[in-house]
Amino acid sequence: MSAPATVNVVALARALIDAESVTPARGAVFDVLEAALLPLGFAVDRFVVGEAPDGPVENLLATRGTSRPHLAFAGHVDVVPAGDGWTSDAFASQVRDGLLYGRGAVDMKGAVAAFVAATAASSDVGQVTLIITGDEEGPATYGTESLIERMRDRGIAPDLCLVGEPTSARALGDTIKIGRRGSVNIWIEVPGRQGHVAYPHLADNPIPKLVAALAELDALVLDKGSEWFQPSNLEVTDITVGNPATNVIPAAAKARVSIRFNDLHQGDTLATRVAEIVRRHAPEAIVTSRVSGEAFLTEPGPLSAMLSAAILHETGLTPELSTTGGTSDARFLRALCPVIEFGLLNVTMHQRDEAVAIDDLHALTRIYADLLRRASSVG
Amino acid sequence: MSAPATVNVVALARALIDAESVTPARGAVFDVLEAALLPLGFAVDRFVVGEAPDGPVENLLATRGTSRPHLAFAGHVDVVPAGDGWTSDAFASQVRDGLLYGRGAVDMKGAVAAFVAATAASSDVGQVTLIITGDEEGPATYGTESLIERMRDRGIAPDLCLVGEPTSARALGDTIKIGRRGSVNIWIEVPGRQGHVAYPHLADNPIPKLVAALAELDALVLDKGSEWFQPSNLEVTDITVGNPATNVIPAAAKARVSIRFNDLHQGDTLATRVAEIVRRHAPEAIVTSRVSGEAFLTEPGPLSAMLSAAILHETGLTPELSTTGGTSDARFLRALCPVIEFGLLNVTMHQRDEAVAIDDLHALTRIYADLLRRASSVG
Ligand SMILES: [Zn+2]
Ligand SMILES: [Zn+2]
Repeated sequence: MSAPATVNVVALARALIDAESVTPARGAVFDVLEAALLPLGFAVDRFVVGEAPDGPVENLLATRGTSRPHLAFAGHVDVVPAGDGWTSDAFASQVRDGLLYGRGAVDMKGAVAAFVAATAASSDVGQVTLIITGDEEGPATYGTESLIERMRDRGIAPDLCLVGEPTSARALGDTIKIGRRGSVNIWIEVPGRQGHVAYPHLADNPIPKLVAALAELDALVLDKGSEWFQPSNLEVTDITVGNPATNVIPAAAKARVSIRFNDLHQGDTLATRVAEIVRRHAPEAIVTSRVSGEAFLTEPGPLSAMLSAAILHETGLTPELSTTGGTSDARFLRALCPVIEFGLLNVTMHQRDEAVAIDDLHALTRIYADLLRRASSVG
Repeated sequence: MSAPATVNVVALARALIDAESVTPARGAVFDVLEAALLPLGFAVDRFVVGEAPDGPVENLLATRGTSRPHLAFAGHVDVVPAGDGWTSDAFASQVRDGLLYGRGAVDMKGAVAAFVAATAASSDVGQVTLIITGDEEGPATYGTESLIERMRDRGIAPDLCLVGEPTSARALGDTIKIGRRGSVNIWIEVPGRQGHVAYPHLADNPIPKLVAALAELDALVLDKGSEWFQPSNLEVTDITVGNPATNVIPAAAKARVSIRFNDLHQGDTLATRVAEIVRRHAPEAIVTSRVSGEAFLTEPGPLSAMLSAAILHETGLTPELSTTGGTSDARFLRALCPVIEFGLLNVTMHQRDEAVAIDDLHALTRIYADLLRRASSVG
């Protein structure tokens, strides 16, 4: 057996950051990643899918080995825009006082670099696959779902999957995500009949009906939480009437509702329930919905136990098993195998001066490598 | 005494219609009116006031005689835009089947022509003043209020005033307005704290507070009507959040309310009451208001009795004494003297193919002339 290749996780993270890749990402940032993976023995499959406005998007599938267990690392190399107020250029990485600055440092080019460095340090651990998209921060139309389709076509079927999103809150290792709430958006339109405010009997104001429906929706208690989830929550996020005339009763009123829901619900059932409440106040209301993702839970088991052990070994912390926060691509990957999420500190994600501690990059690499070893000794 | 001048009410109405005069009006339409008034012995005072965007506006004050009683006819020669779908040009009058078509035919160039023709037919009836503005359909910033100021400066103080707005509903003479409801618009802004829907505890959604306030406002019973007025009415006319992001809790939510109120209320008191209700749900809400006009009532008395008698004599109808509908310039003129409103059929006002029956133009002229004679015999 040849001497194992090594990867400098800091150098790789910097190269990834320096390859600017605001969603939808393709090209240079994938070149950097491919160049790092090829010497490690990975078969790299890059493909571009989709058209404007959501695409084209580049995705990368890299796999090595054939023996069980088959562990996948999933993530993204696209980033949100820089925004204003950075101390140094967001797309020219810089190290200051032990911190590596740059857009994507924690979300999640740092973790992608740690994936690669961990696999470099662990050469004989069963099959390893990297599932990397260029569209996680955007509409995700041509991102992880396209990768899952490609894996099915090619017969790549991991046993376990770790998503490297920044899950740590106060210290690296304090939080693992074992699930995520689902998300559904609901659009409500209440039609009325326009008229003059001086003659309300000749008009039909849609606003009181919409207001009554929204008041009832706002008072709704969907549940009190479940074993692993906080209570589901409904927010009215927008109301639009768009009537510039002070003496006119408007012809229609619209609202938008967002529900983040736990494993006691399904998106479509919630949308139906909202529509029923709205129609009780406004029988002619038009209610449409879009489910961004169902709630998912990987019940605590071997995967979370191995990851917790690796984290405890490296950091001395026993991570909390959480299901809070927004959605992630884990909502798609759950269709493949048990999924768990663990990564860097999320404090600076999507902020100006996004930064990761150099020490954390090394520690995360050791945790991922340790997980690979623990998984292979079980397998 | 010379032979009395006569005025052809139809010819004058057509000349006024043909002088296009969408608000704010000035120039040609006033030339037509002045040319008709001078031969009748009126002293005509035309003046232009105001600047863009609400001006400049032309107004006309014409007075004749010095003896009591002093009756004023008030009205406007500006019109609303033509809009689409006319059978013939809105600004080129046309007579078809006994109807005179054109923008302003009923609102209210027809009535202004009848003012003039009535004074031509009644030469010895005390002092007569015409109070004519070029901005009644618009913001009225430089309209009737400027005329009232001018009258005060010049010591022109009528005893009674008739506004010639189209008050008739089904047949000429069926309705007189002896009052109008007041009008107040109220703007509500509820501030919140923007945030991500996945972390509602870090945000403060302003929408539920606004919705609760609007639900309470909508349920409010302001009164059950008064002797001459229908109940006051509140309408929510607009809601604006303007949040395009489905996953964001918005930073603020706004609404606009319009109240049409009777003589049991004052605009400011109602605005304060609304603000108190809103602040109970949203203590930091910003509530502003603008009173377009207070409610007014000219209690049935000599003026309405004389007008009713003149109408009965001409049409055989006993008019209903009404206070319904929108605001009019009577809300300003009430400061001068008792005010009453009577004019043509309002069915086609502000509509395409606005039209007045030729017979009604002649009948209205006879009613106004009869009122002048009845008033002078009382005075
Ligand atoms: Zn991310
Ligand atoms: Zn009018």
